[in-house]
Amino acid sequence: MTEAIAGPEIERLIQLLAKLPGLGPRSARRAALHLIRKREALLAPLADAMQVAAERIVVCEACGNIDTRQPCSICADLRRDQTTLVVVETVADLWALERAGAMKARYHVLGGTLSPLDGIGPKDLNLDRLAARAADGVKEVILALNATVDGQTTAHYITDLLSHLGITVTRLAHGVPVGGELDYLDEGTLSAAMRQRTGMG
Amino acid sequence: MTEAIAGPEIERLIQLLAKLPGLGPRSARRAALHLIRKREALLAPLADAMQVAAERIVVCEACGNIDTRQPCSICADLRRDQTTLVVVETVADLWALERAGAMKARYHVLGGTLSPLDGIGPKDLNLDRLAARAADGVKEVILALNATVDGQTTAHYITDLLSHLGITVTRLAHGVPVGGELDYLDEGTLSAAMRQRTGMG
Repeated sequence: MTEAIAGPEIERLIQLLAKLPGLGPRSARRAALHLIRKREALLAPLADAMQVAAERIVVCEACGNIDTRQPCSICADLRRDQTTLVVVETVADLWALERAGAMKARYHVLGGTLSPLDGIGPKDLNLDRLAARAADGVKEVILALNATVDGQTTAHYITDLLSHLGITVTRLAHGVPVGGELDYLDEGTLSAAMRQRTGMG
Repeated sequence: MTEAIAGPEIERLIQLLAKLPGLGPRSARRAALHLIRKREALLAPLADAMQVAAERIVVCEACGNIDTRQPCSICADLRRDQTTLVVVETVADLWALERAGAMKARYHVLGGTLSPLDGIGPKDLNLDRLAARAADGVKEVILALNATVDGQTTAHYITDLLSHLGITVTRLAHGVPVGGELDYLDEGTLSAAMRQRTGMG
């Protein structure tokens, strides 16, 4: 039935587009029509960009970031602080910190968090290499993990894992988001922000 | 700055994805990461599907539908009622009617509606060919246009355009959507549904 509407090629395009996060069957059809209308300006370039990405993107063997070079641009950048390692759960978190320009150091992507309920244990994360990298001239490991139960469990596990190295292990501050209104914040955040209050410097 | 995060290839992929309707800059990044994670299962097939679409999709010279064949599958399907022509604004509307299985006839895609405010006049729509097709053995033209001001203006224009042919010109019924609750419907729809009430069978 649906196949007869516009041929199997368009149906296949719609079905694949619908697998993207944020697109459902209906918006995938809209996206497919938009692509076909803008064939020269968007469809052909996007097909090329995806081809290039599929062929050339590699996972950095040092940190777990993705890039088209090995090691990745960040690991290869010697201007970055080589004594600090920022541990993140995912490449998306790495990108978020880079966009913020939060810290010009190197990263270590775990690929997830410990989650006993989902059967994710230490062996499933990029932890062996973290211990090896931390032992190689690093003075501080910053745990930039999500403030979730699994994220905090993982933070404590890593703190134990690295304790014998005698390096500083820190985590991101909790507090009021910049621009945030107190009235809309949960009690846990407000308590943490109060406990960790800082001088008016 | 952003370029340094993951190389220009990934940035380009994100920028192109962000041009899809329904995706913004943030969701385009999420989509790009998802694609890269599922390189074999999704990224490479989607690149192929887009390549095929970019190379093979054509606009049907008869009706304005898109397909990989000329004329399109619907125009080529002789089992469809050849005496009825369903006029729609866009290919998306054609697909919607086909999904509904509303009418096994042929279509005519206008490519928009008359819209003096946006500078869209009769010459910008697929109207000349509509008149020619309607004169060629068609008994009824169904105007399946949106129930907007522009859609209705266009419907009246087409009715005038075809008046000399002596064929029946109809439009879709207004009324209560199937499954709809009266309490949530606007007054215009309720009035139309009341005026066009039908017998209980």
